Amino acid sequence: MNNATILKIGGSVLTDKSKEKTLKSKEMGRIAKEIASAGVRDLVIVHGAGSFGHPQAKRFGLDVPGKCSYETVVTHETVKELNRAFIEKLVENGMLTMPVHPLSCAISREGRVENMMTDQIRLMLKNGIVPVVHGDVVMDRGWRRAILSGDQIVVHLARCLNAKMVGIGTDVDGIMDDDEVISIITPKTFGDVKRLLGGSRDIDVTGGMSSKVNELVKLAEDGIPSHIFNASRKGLIVDFLRGERNFGTIIRGD
Amino acid sequence: MNNATILKIGGSVLTDKSKEKTLKSKEMGRIAKEIASAGVRDLVIVHGAGSFGHPQAKRFGLDVPGKCSYETVVTHETVKELNRAFIEKLVENGMLTMPVHPLSCAISREGRVENMMTDQIRLMLKNGIVPVVHGDVVMDRGWRRAILSGDQIVVHLARCLNAKMVGIGTDVDGIMDDDEVISIITPKTFGDVKRLLGGSRDIDVTGGMSSKVNELVKLAEDGIPSHIFNASRKGLIVDFLRGERNFGTIIRGD
Repeated sequence: MNNATILKIGGSVLTDKSKEKTLKSKEMGRIAKEIASAGVRDLVIVHGAGSFGHPQAKRFGLDVPGKCSYETVVTHETVKELNRAFIEKLVENGMLTMPVHPLSCAISREGRVENMMTDQIRLMLKNGIVPVVHGDVVMDRGWRRAILSGDQIVVHLARCLNAKMVGIGTDVDGIMDDDEVISIITPKTFGDVKRLLGGSRDIDVTGGMSSKVNELVKLAEDGIPSHIFNASRKGLIVDFLRGERNFGTIIRGD
Repeated sequence: MNNATILKIGGSVLTDKSKEKTLKSKEMGRIAKEIASAGVRDLVIVHGAGSFGHPQAKRFGLDVPGKCSYETVVTHETVKELNRAFIEKLVENGMLTMPVHPLSCAISREGRVENMMTDQIRLMLKNGIVPVVHGDVVMDRGWRRAILSGDQIVVHLARCLNAKMVGIGTDVDGIMDDDEVISIITPKTFGDVKRLLGGSRDIDVTGGMSSKVNELVKLAEDGIPSHIFNASRKGLIVDFLRGERNFGTIIRGD
């Protein structure tokens, strides 16, 4: 398989990160409609947890190593609610989707994915189904439990499925140099870009934009390009899925 | 690992199979309390779908090969509701449990489990967590989707984890010969037992008692004994977990 497209939709796009467990319902509907209308095959969707995971993880201290507790399970159940709501919107728009929950199919080692089953995802794609994966808490070898970010999952799946393209739908226009979007980042130019990147403003227990780009540059080195764009701007998800590349930031090999 | 105990709780014990999506809430509470009070380590719970899966699977035709449709996802989401309700009861009784959803971590080939990830389950056990797995719909190589029964999962996990004991909590006293419970079944005596077993009375899309025993006899041949007992009778779950074997049907090697 090398036709898969992986589309990440950031938690800040689907939820209001300032209020715990708050959907941006209308936005979610618009996004689902855009994804459905593009009609691409071999699509895997990965979404972040937004306010259905980050505030809880922060409050319960899940962003640092520690014991497994009831709160770990609560956080997992909460992000599954977001996953279900998003799947419902996708279904309403005529898409055949299925949830894939990382706690059930992935483990990490000190915060890095160690093993994630993908046979079920491959079969879903073969059957014309769009798997909808999400950032989650997972069992960790060493830390006992860890947060596996949607971004890390995207990169891992992109490698496993040898994806042809990765889309990172965020709430910013791309990687910025002052007021200007950087159109292209390659492993060679990444050094210059690094100093521009700080953490993101909101609560983000998964590392923010800097670690995101770092992962994507490594992916580009392995031959899989990615495209960071603003999924909150109408039409850009459709444009991305249809192969337009004249917006946002493209991360590709030298 | 060879200390794991696997406890199956039948869907008919946790739910009213005659009414769709109907919990036996009080029973579920009693069962959760019994499991918690036994205080065994290295326990894996597997539960059936009962009225949170069987009627839906039957109505949607999921018990025969066919296309993946929205109904497949609905059935999955429904059995996850039962899983969540059961986990809540276990948590209320002080147990640290985590859900494991087979659609996310298992695939089958023509109705038989082909691959099921168990690393996450092993780490849960290592961390003192009780994984709670359930019968589910899964992606199938050949049939596109299939029902993976709790019983099949029990047998598969018992082999993968090299379990020391398997408990099958049902709503009958054991395998019956007329009015009498057969105390012991071995591969040698199984031939005589077979003719006694018909299908179960209720809607059961997963094969009923006959196929259940068939699987357990094969497991016994591989050195893993099992114990079929009536989980609807008060106290028997605790007795099972504490190692008492003077009730129900024991299936073991010759």
